Amino acid sequence: MSVRYLSAKIAQQVDEELMSAAGAFSLDQLMELAGLACAQTLATVYDRERYPRVLVCCGPGNQGGDGLVAARHLGMFGYKPTIWMPKPGSKDIYKNLHKQCTNMHIPTLGTSGDALSDALPSHDVILDAIFGFSFKPPVRAPFDAALPLLSQSKLPIVSVDIPSGWDVERGNAEGVGLEPDVLVSLTAPKEGSRAFQGLHFLGGRFIPKTLEEKYELNLPPYPGFAQIVELPSNAEQKL
Amino acid sequence: MSVRYLSAKIAQQVDEELMSAAGAFSLDQLMELAGLACAQTLATVYDRERYPRVLVCCGPGNQGGDGLVAARHLGMFGYKPTIWMPKPGSKDIYKNLHKQCTNMHIPTLGTSGDALSDALPSHDVILDAIFGFSFKPPVRAPFDAALPLLSQSKLPIVSVDIPSGWDVERGNAEGVGLEPDVLVSLTAPKEGSRAFQGLHFLGGRFIPKTLEEKYELNLPPYPGFAQIVELPSNAEQKL
Repeated sequence: MSVRYLSAKIAQQVDEELMSAAGAFSLDQLMELAGLACAQTLATVYDRERYPRVLVCCGPGNQGGDGLVAARHLGMFGYKPTIWMPKPGSKDIYKNLHKQCTNMHIPTLGTSGDALSDALPSHDVILDAIFGFSFKPPVRAPFDAALPLLSQSKLPIVSVDIPSGWDVERGNAEGVGLEPDVLVSLTAPKEGSRAFQGLHFLGGRFIPKTLEEKYELNLPPYPGFAQIVELPSNAEQKL
Repeated sequence: MSVRYLSAKIAQQVDEELMSAAGAFSLDQLMELAGLACAQTLATVYDRERYPRVLVCCGPGNQGGDGLVAARHLGMFGYKPTIWMPKPGSKDIYKNLHKQCTNMHIPTLGTSGDALSDALPSHDVILDAIFGFSFKPPVRAPFDAALPLLSQSKLPIVSVDIPSGWDVERGNAEGVGLEPDVLVSLTAPKEGSRAFQGLHFLGGRFIPKTLEEKYELNLPPYPGFAQIVELPSNAEQKL
């Protein structure tokens, strides 16, 4: 049995159940493990000698929080991350996660229109933590202008959960989304990523077996004590 | 320059600074990373085929919280952990961390005097998360009876931060402490562990460089994106 690809609704339900009174997880905990998995995925594919300068692009929601956690871990791993977060979420958790990054001297780009385009040439790889599974089109400013800039940069892109601009269920049907080289799905892949042809990793090793069974997730076994596992590529699955 | 061994006071200061408004970390975050490091250390030394049954012994404080996080991760790694936590802390975080374990069907021993001695023969390795760097002698009930039981079991022991019963600065001078095979120090080793002769790991890869420099911690480089690093043994250092 292969891994289940989740609809936006089911992904939302799994998330809510984890953080319900019954699931007992805090957002801090889950975001820490998710962000760590994102950083480890990037570090697995793009080594810090050749790709030290990571542009971490963060959206306004929990996805952006994952990005901030990943930026901090990338800093700990010896990368030189820079944060682009033009619409920071107002929740305290985002402020704290951002403070943790500034305490590590991880710079954050300004919010002017040119800040992103100016920064791209001096980076080696992009971590796309802009939109997650609760994204609904259309892409709004300033991200509508940013997605083409990121694509045109020709830098390698690692996307978190679902490539930004993709519909969570229908993928990049509209053609406005990023085309990342690497995708790290969190807890379970989303339906929209079925057509993704690049390197596909799974992170978020915190789903209790009972929840996995309830939602028939059929998660693949993670190796040893790793926090990420590579999924078979869709190209391979079709053979 | 070798790594700094911390006094109880400095360890406390580092911890407080991390969780201050300036440090911006939440206890949930730090405990998640600390507990993950403990679980990964145990999994590095004791593989799950030969040592599947881990008895996770938790004290009433934050050390016990690290133990609960480690128990959950060990469950995710395919071990069969059992929790012994005779004096559970009253803070919500401990209740939530424990709930996360029961959701994974990780059993918890009863609090009767015989529960621990009855359980020991059916376990392969002990994770000692009883006392941490805020421990002050004497060892109080029920732990005063438990430490000799754990020692007499002859099971391998992995201790968190400082072996239980050791003075944080003077080590096992009183001779009432455990003699673990493996120690995982968190953030930086404690003075009391200078004389420790077993396998010594460091976890807690979340200290910003500025804090490391302020306290002259001289932390060793962690490999790649690992969350733990082995410290040179004291026997080696003396050569």
